Amino acid sequence: MTDALSIARDLIRCPSVTPADAGALGVLEKALNAAGFTCHRVTFSEPGTADVDNLYARIGTAGPHITFAGHTDVVPPGDESAWSVGAFSGEVKDGVLHGRGAVDMKGGIACSVAAVLAHLAANGGKPRSDGKGSISFLITGDEEDVSVNGTVKLLKWAAERGEKFDHCVLGEPSNVETLGDTIKVGRRGSQSGTLVVDGVQGHVAYPHRASNPVPDISRLIVAISDEPLDHGSAQFQASNLEFTSVDVGNKAFNVIPGEARARFNIRYNDNHTQASLRELVEARLAKACGNRIKARIVWEPSNSNVFVTKPGPFTDLAVSAIEEVTGRKPELSTSGGTSDARFIASYCPVIEFGLVGQTMHQVDERVPVKDLEKLTKVYRGILARYFG
Amino acid sequence: MTDALSIARDLIRCPSVTPADAGALGVLEKALNAAGFTCHRVTFSEPGTADVDNLYARIGTAGPHITFAGHTDVVPPGDESAWSVGAFSGEVKDGVLHGRGAVDMKGGIACSVAAVLAHLAANGGKPRSDGKGSISFLITGDEEDVSVNGTVKLLKWAAERGEKFDHCVLGEPSNVETLGDTIKVGRRGSQSGTLVVDGVQGHVAYPHRASNPVPDISRLIVAISDEPLDHGSAQFQASNLEFTSVDVGNKAFNVIPGEARARFNIRYNDNHTQASLRELVEARLAKACGNRIKARIVWEPSNSNVFVTKPGPFTDLAVSAIEEVTGRKPELSTSGGTSDARFIASYCPVIEFGLVGQTMHQVDERVPVKDLEKLTKVYRGILARYFG
Ligand SMILES: [Zn+2]
Ligand SMILES: [Zn+2]
Repeated sequence: MTDALSIARDLIRCPSVTPADAGALGVLEKALNAAGFTCHRVTFSEPGTADVDNLYARIGTAGPHITFAGHTDVVPPGDESAWSVGAFSGEVKDGVLHGRGAVDMKGGIACSVAAVLAHLAANGGKPRSDGKGSISFLITGDEEDVSVNGTVKLLKWAAERGEKFDHCVLGEPSNVETLGDTIKVGRRGSQSGTLVVDGVQGHVAYPHRASNPVPDISRLIVAISDEPLDHGSAQFQASNLEFTSVDVGNKAFNVIPGEARARFNIRYNDNHTQASLRELVEARLAKACGNRIKARIVWEPSNSNVFVTKPGPFTDLAVSAIEEVTGRKPELSTSGGTSDARFIASYCPVIEFGLVGQTMHQVDERVPVKDLEKLTKVYRGILARYFG
Repeated sequence: MTDALSIARDLIRCPSVTPADAGALGVLEKALNAAGFTCHRVTFSEPGTADVDNLYARIGTAGPHITFAGHTDVVPPGDESAWSVGAFSGEVKDGVLHGRGAVDMKGGIACSVAAVLAHLAANGGKPRSDGKGSISFLITGDEEDVSVNGTVKLLKWAAERGEKFDHCVLGEPSNVETLGDTIKVGRRGSQSGTLVVDGVQGHVAYPHRASNPVPDISRLIVAISDEPLDHGSAQFQASNLEFTSVDVGNKAFNVIPGEARARFNIRYNDNHTQASLRELVEARLAKACGNRIKARIVWEPSNSNVFVTKPGPFTDLAVSAIEEVTGRKPELSTSGGTSDARFIASYCPVIEFGLVGQTMHQVDERVPVKDLEKLTKVYRGILARYFG
């Protein structure tokens, strides 16, 4: 059975909580093999993390090349007794498919596979009836947890084999309330750091012999986070810096501590690069420290750069396919957290369009069967326009 | 042998690291019994702490009643191999007595006992030749650690027996550089508290749905600690508030925490009572919070109230005795940390005068034998004037 509901149910019945595969990639491999795809199962390793299975499947050898990306791993079900149906049962109740991954994102993957199979069937088994064009799937089992043995490595592996992608659709649940309301066309970058203030330890009874880092780090936290980093850009909301923790860990009530640390995270838009952003924050710090406060920032490594797919022919065809099926003109959004799109964006333009995210990561994650059918139609519409 | 050096050596040879007595109180009891004192050994207990021995000894039944207070417990020797002599050997090298407690404060106790015995011997075995007057010793073994089974309970025990003290000399090492430079006549109070700021937890990507307590507690820390609490008083330096720790303990870089806490300690002078001080800080907090920040202070119980012995006949006679022996006019100081004087001050005026504190709590704690002799003479001078 190669309709979206059947594939989604088969996937949900594999309890593939990261890093377990539990047969999920095999479900896709079987269906894609049967349709003529060349499939590669690739396992990646990293010291300190579990090995994770990934799947790359391609049909066609020429461009244009569109790839559908996604992840078959899911977050844990939580309290299973709170679910209306088994979290991995894939039951349909009143026209709604229940189960962990229903929207994030086994349902989305199932729709893309079903749409591609239907597209191929309608075109003599080829992406384009003239024999040109390629369609591929970049599916990882390592997205929900540390994301080190997944898409980031699969893209590198593919590039080293000479694979070139022209465009990508990532089927993450992009819609906020109704199917068709939102395409994600970018994400803000994420950069964390730790502010360290060096004081001089001493006894509270003799404060003049000490230098207390607690009021100093407090002053710096206010100075660094009080002013907005910008006021947004054409496609992005304003960048934002949040101090997420401040810690001294001094248990002695009569001791002025020698050091204080505060951790922060920045979500930044395309007004900045990682380098310009660090410069901006360092400049605020230097100004607030003056000649008096001794402080420094320890920046954390980050692979979450800001990216955006500008409006153009690729977003236009997606919007048109969505409008045709749903009657809605989707917003091109750049809000929210990060996804694997941040890795894909280094290789080709990427948009995210999938199901409605409301129940993701929750008890009774679920999707109306009608939404699966509609999303399949949207993906078919994208393929028809892409290869039309 | 009832000279100060002999008593001090006998005491140092008892390794009475809190809460061990190791025979130290027995050394004093034996000498005082022989001179006609009525001695009481009192053991105090408290759940969660070790039982500790205390000694109360009195000679005479009428007023005026002067009491010498002190502690025979000592802090641990630390790295004993770093000492020039055994930490509990009580060795004299080149006229200097070495050993843990030499200045803090077995040496001081030894001088007071030697002075009292000499005074009694010169007055027919009585505090005053007319038979009036009383001299007592309030000696605890629980000062250096938690101080719960020591002076605070011994004073209460004595009060319940009807003991009334007119004046007290506490033989803590009050002098900074040279014997005679400083009498302590008061101590600042100490009050600790925790500032708690309630925010609303959330994801850093959606800061508008959260309320970050980190910048808010930073603002409050600055607002509360930036302005001095006062500018000092006739006998005291300015009160001071120090934030000693600020802690959130949030390990998740992408989560805005729901709460932040900061601990502070105040050393306050006689411009304040505990109650007025708390009011002052609460008012600063309320002003800084406005209607926006939700914060509260959790005050810790404190028995370290501010106290001061005003200049008058009692301080005058001490100053006169010190000047006669040392040729120095001591400063009447209220600086530094707390001591058991804070408990005694609720019962009678108290001054602290003892040896020079420079080596206290250190490796090679030591005192010149000449200083023991001089301090014994000072105490004799105080007794002579007190009963003269
Ligand atoms: Zn997902
Ligand atoms: Zn002491």
